[in-house]
Amino acid sequence: MDNPFLVEVTRGHVVESRHRGSVAVVDAEGSTVLSLGDVERRVFPRSAVKAIQALPLLENGIADKYGLTDEEIALACASHSGEPEHAAAAASMLAKAGLGEPCLECGVHWPMSEAAARALAAQGGQPTQLHNNCSGKHAGFICLACGLGEDPKGYVSAHHPVQQAVRHALEDLTGASHTDDVSGTDGCSIPTYAIPLPALAFGFARFGTGIGLSEGCRGAAERIRRAVARHPFMVAGTGRFDTRLMEALRERAFVKVGAEGVYCAAFPELGYGVALKADDGGTRAAEAMMAALVLRFLKLDDGERAVVEELAQPVLKNWNGIEVGRIRVTRELLA
Amino acid sequence: MDNPFLVEVTRGHVVESRHRGSVAVVDAEGSTVLSLGDVERRVFPRSAVKAIQALPLLENGIADKYGLTDEEIALACASHSGEPEHAAAAASMLAKAGLGEPCLECGVHWPMSEAAARALAAQGGQPTQLHNNCSGKHAGFICLACGLGEDPKGYVSAHHPVQQAVRHALEDLTGASHTDDVSGTDGCSIPTYAIPLPALAFGFARFGTGIGLSEGCRGAAERIRRAVARHPFMVAGTGRFDTRLMEALRERAFVKVGAEGVYCAAFPELGYGVALKADDGGTRAAEAMMAALVLRFLKLDDGERAVVEELAQPVLKNWNGIEVGRIRVTRELLA
Repeated sequence: MDNPFLVEVTRGHVVESRHRGSVAVVDAEGSTVLSLGDVERRVFPRSAVKAIQALPLLENGIADKYGLTDEEIALACASHSGEPEHAAAAASMLAKAGLGEPCLECGVHWPMSEAAARALAAQGGQPTQLHNNCSGKHAGFICLACGLGEDPKGYVSAHHPVQQAVRHALEDLTGASHTDDVSGTDGCSIPTYAIPLPALAFGFARFGTGIGLSEGCRGAAERIRRAVARHPFMVAGTGRFDTRLMEALRERAFVKVGAEGVYCAAFPELGYGVALKADDGGTRAAEAMMAALVLRFLKLDDGERAVVEELAQPVLKNWNGIEVGRIRVTRELLA
Repeated sequence: MDNPFLVEVTRGHVVESRHRGSVAVVDAEGSTVLSLGDVERRVFPRSAVKAIQALPLLENGIADKYGLTDEEIALACASHSGEPEHAAAAASMLAKAGLGEPCLECGVHWPMSEAAARALAAQGGQPTQLHNNCSGKHAGFICLACGLGEDPKGYVSAHHPVQQAVRHALEDLTGASHTDDVSGTDGCSIPTYAIPLPALAFGFARFGTGIGLSEGCRGAAERIRRAVARHPFMVAGTGRFDTRLMEALRERAFVKVGAEGVYCAAFPELGYGVALKADDGGTRAAEAMMAALVLRFLKLDDGERAVVEELAQPVLKNWNGIEVGRIRVTRELLA
């Protein structure tokens, strides 16, 4: 089955590039709301499921035990830009567990934000694991390990109690089996499991509504959604899609990007979960698709609409600030 | 017509992302050697035609008038990384025409190389137009304007004698009309014209062989190919595909990337020109496709093959240096 063209990139009057993709929107009972393309093909959700991966930290009372703030809980679900606030919050989470940066096993990279990377370089700095876009998630894993009385060492391994708990949370919410034959290693070294988009969307419908979840899990999901809605900067960063969208919509939409063109979302007021993938892994396409789905399903006021429309159909400008083209979604998505 | 899958990105045992594309390989008589996908769809060649855009500078004897070096001629065809050598060579070209950085009309951006950008920031520096990846091409345009006795001001406009000369060179080599209805504005503000891939490939077959070109144009093309083969660092930069490939193959292959997943090449010993596009604009896909075509058509020795195979099937490692997947081309390209 050929996935449909969902996003076009124009230059002048010509379509310069095109992205195909697939989309699943599902309600908390598992009924299909929208299905585009081959949704049964398994997709690695990558970082789009960080909020689900953070559930065990909240569910086990460990976030409270260590006194994690809302900012820190939001950071535990983040693919952050490595700005100073992000690195500081990750360090704070580790300190609350009595540990430090060397315990992280996510690896070092320069801040994802080029401006933050250059600012760090200008100060004569070097990146640490705290700047890794996944450092908040990893700091949360380390808190979870300590809170469970486990040695955090090796917490990225599929066999460590932390990853076992994370896998159970993913299976519990999505209803999909997360087995070794569909596993891969993520950029930050933890396992990632490829599952079909409807299962992923179903997981987010449940994450957004609590329907069908245990009381502990429901409370954990609610706490995470509220923390992220209060601190959208912590889950991404300056100018980033997730930050801008949630600064505008707050608790009306929980959205999270994943690498390789994946997006997940929950629209709690509708009871919908969303999962999508751009075939080619393009983030610009996944972002436009997600914004288009927000426009399609949520009733927005003028202020909200202005933000989301700009995200759905961004204007492309060149180095002289001249408009050269646009990214636009196709009719399939808007219908 | 659906373009075929030409590149897959794997993670673990799963194909995570897929790129479709189209390819045209044509000889200098215009006969088709290979055609994959919808090659009649018009494509903006973007920076992939910089070598053709540089022909008027050489053809009119202006490069010699100003004593441009081989490094500078290579830079005139470059999408460079903004490393210090690149910025210095662009400044030198302008100085030879008695002008300076303010005459450039390409706009400012931080060096394309993140390492170069951070190094500049660490020195307390700010980028100038010299760091724009197109600064060499623009410095060449300014030399061309001055050499023709024209005011360089406004040299990026389609109506300026510089862009008229560039458009004629493109039409002359490719045989395709470059009209306003298929024009767009490039990232550096000059016009770019969408044409079918076979015409683009035909242009590069002629660029690589000189067949069918005037004596002046043939000599200009030869001089450019030689300059780039001697200084592949100047057309791209540290670790970049074009630099690595041409450091290995020198005059056996002229290759040039364009934005939005375009690649062009000439294989002079075979008389072939190549033009390809990844539908979605993905550079990683375009690079793998181009490397696969080099492997398919050129008879390589072991040293050359080792370099090109690594470019065709790169291993993807995560932040801890663990192999997580691969980029690989599909059978259609290798057959």
